[in-house]
Amino acid sequence: MTQRVSAAALRDYTARLFSAAGLSAEDAGIVADALVTTDLRGIDSHGVAHIPRYIRGLQNGSLNGRPNIRILRETPSTAMLDADHGLGFLVGYRAMQIAIAKAKTAGSGWVSAHDSTHYGAAGYWASLALPHDLIGFSLCTSTSRIAPTFGARGMVGTNPIALAVPAGREPPFLLDMATSVVPMGKLEIHLREDKPLPEGWVVDINGKALTDPHEAYRRSIDGDVMLLPLGGAGETWGGHKGYGLGFAVEIMSHLLAGYAGAVAVTPGREPGLGQFYGALSVDAFQPADDFKAIMDNRLREYKTTPPLPGHERVLVAGQKEWEKSQERQREGIPLHDEVLAHLREVGASLGVPFPG
Amino acid sequence: MTQRVSAAALRDYTARLFSAAGLSAEDAGIVADALVTTDLRGIDSHGVAHIPRYIRGLQNGSLNGRPNIRILRETPSTAMLDADHGLGFLVGYRAMQIAIAKAKTAGSGWVSAHDSTHYGAAGYWASLALPHDLIGFSLCTSTSRIAPTFGARGMVGTNPIALAVPAGREPPFLLDMATSVVPMGKLEIHLREDKPLPEGWVVDINGKALTDPHEAYRRSIDGDVMLLPLGGAGETWGGHKGYGLGFAVEIMSHLLAGYAGAVAVTPGREPGLGQFYGALSVDAFQPADDFKAIMDNRLREYKTTPPLPGHERVLVAGQKEWEKSQERQREGIPLHDEVLAHLREVGASLGVPFPG
Repeated sequence: MTQRVSAAALRDYTARLFSAAGLSAEDAGIVADALVTTDLRGIDSHGVAHIPRYIRGLQNGSLNGRPNIRILRETPSTAMLDADHGLGFLVGYRAMQIAIAKAKTAGSGWVSAHDSTHYGAAGYWASLALPHDLIGFSLCTSTSRIAPTFGARGMVGTNPIALAVPAGREPPFLLDMATSVVPMGKLEIHLREDKPLPEGWVVDINGKALTDPHEAYRRSIDGDVMLLPLGGAGETWGGHKGYGLGFAVEIMSHLLAGYAGAVAVTPGREPGLGQFYGALSVDAFQPADDFKAIMDNRLREYKTTPPLPGHERVLVAGQKEWEKSQERQREGIPLHDEVLAHLREVGASLGVPFPG
Repeated sequence: MTQRVSAAALRDYTARLFSAAGLSAEDAGIVADALVTTDLRGIDSHGVAHIPRYIRGLQNGSLNGRPNIRILRETPSTAMLDADHGLGFLVGYRAMQIAIAKAKTAGSGWVSAHDSTHYGAAGYWASLALPHDLIGFSLCTSTSRIAPTFGARGMVGTNPIALAVPAGREPPFLLDMATSVVPMGKLEIHLREDKPLPEGWVVDINGKALTDPHEAYRRSIDGDVMLLPLGGAGETWGGHKGYGLGFAVEIMSHLLAGYAGAVAVTPGREPGLGQFYGALSVDAFQPADDFKAIMDNRLREYKTTPPLPGHERVLVAGQKEWEKSQERQREGIPLHDEVLAHLREVGASLGVPFPG
């Protein structure tokens, strides 16, 4: 069962929770905007459902709610940040502000953050560039779960690529994709719904497909099963490309930030992560209005592609999420009973009453 | 049958051909370096085998061998070029020189080229950044052959993504991948070898798999079959991600260069293309020597991943091509009789004798 809560009320509640957990009022608002926008877009796996985890981290000191985010190195178009183990949402916001400012003066801005933490949906950070007529980018790494092609051990994270491109009258192009066949969130959905996994999502260290979601999830914790990279097992359908993209994202986000290896996992602690953010000026290449008219035209061409028999329409990246956000802005955000219970519990512990 | 020709002799011959076709001596050398390096790396589909096509284009005026490549707009980290329908190899070289110079002064350099043409292997252009301790990028679009997810018409090109990252003692990371399951070159190999295509590479406009390479190739010319995006048909294995990446590459390379739609195809003419090039300073984020030591360590960790039963080893992007270039540098580049015959023919028509 779910209950709908208005975006405004949920945003207000979220901000009050993070204030109560020690963030400044401004920073609490930044976190609330990110989480509620993500739920509005229908990405329930990366929104307010994670609040208990973040609040717990702030309380036990494994996340820093008052980070001293410093620029260590800087050029006209780049900045290297020490993120001071800050809550990833605060790091994402500061990093994108720097990237956006640099894009306006130098044509582009590229920001690497060392010692950041989980920052929700990568696409949200890329999308912050859109109101400025900039193309936004964000890359992040995560725990090693993906098999390299022909490999028998999880080496690569689900390492998302996010890219946001402004349009005119059409909703923006917003790509936000794990470089594995599926992210962990998809497994969790099958687990909750007790639905078998399609072959080609998860394999054991002998390469055998696992289709029982309970077994797959349990064994993923011990690290003796692996997710497959986009393109699947072997090279026949391009699995080496998904693996290569995942490694590329690790390089750009984690290694360029100065980490010598994979994400270091300590049970009960939020791992330190490298992240990469970018903003590129459209005006540096084409007058922004001309480019946005081109985007509108081309987005419409894709969306009016004749569909295959049995299918209704062709989508573009970000379209589903945009439609969802229109609907949820009107009707409220549906929260599962379990998520609601956890949110109420956190609120009670911090003395913040749940709205309504 | 093949015959081995030394890289030096082939490079010299190629440069003389392009000189004879009207390029300056310097530019002819630039083209020869690109083509022969590509053959050295084992990417035979994008190297000297294409020389007859380029020479024909230069001769019939559908490629410009003396382009007036102009900077139309510029910021500290970006440049917009009018490439004057220049041979893509000349555009790639100039664009990367500009990107590299900007990366050295502004931290990064991003160059968009309007009215470029086919430029061979995208990875070659990215790799030009490596000797400068820069990370190199290149994106390009091509004829619409890929089905968008649930779509019944080819809309996206095979749109490659190339990324080159310097290492220390290890060969560099060099990713160069079409965003479709396979590039057209793979189809051509199956055609030559009369080998059936795996299901999941090519479908007709009803979504039915085609496995006969002759039928697939013939119908690809009429546009009534489609290649599938990385991740395959539908969304189950992430086909919408490959489609999204392909569209993203089109946006960054073709639309940002000012094109209002897909690549315009005119039979017998080399189409005008948008291309995107980039260089990012490593030193802007980490001392280059530290970063290259990190890359060495991590490349070795990936390469020593325990392999799946029945497999010998795990590769990293660019490893196979690096090994091939060592071998071919020593043993010579094997050229198929058919390729040799065409090269001799072109040489004879231009008064340039084939070596040996």
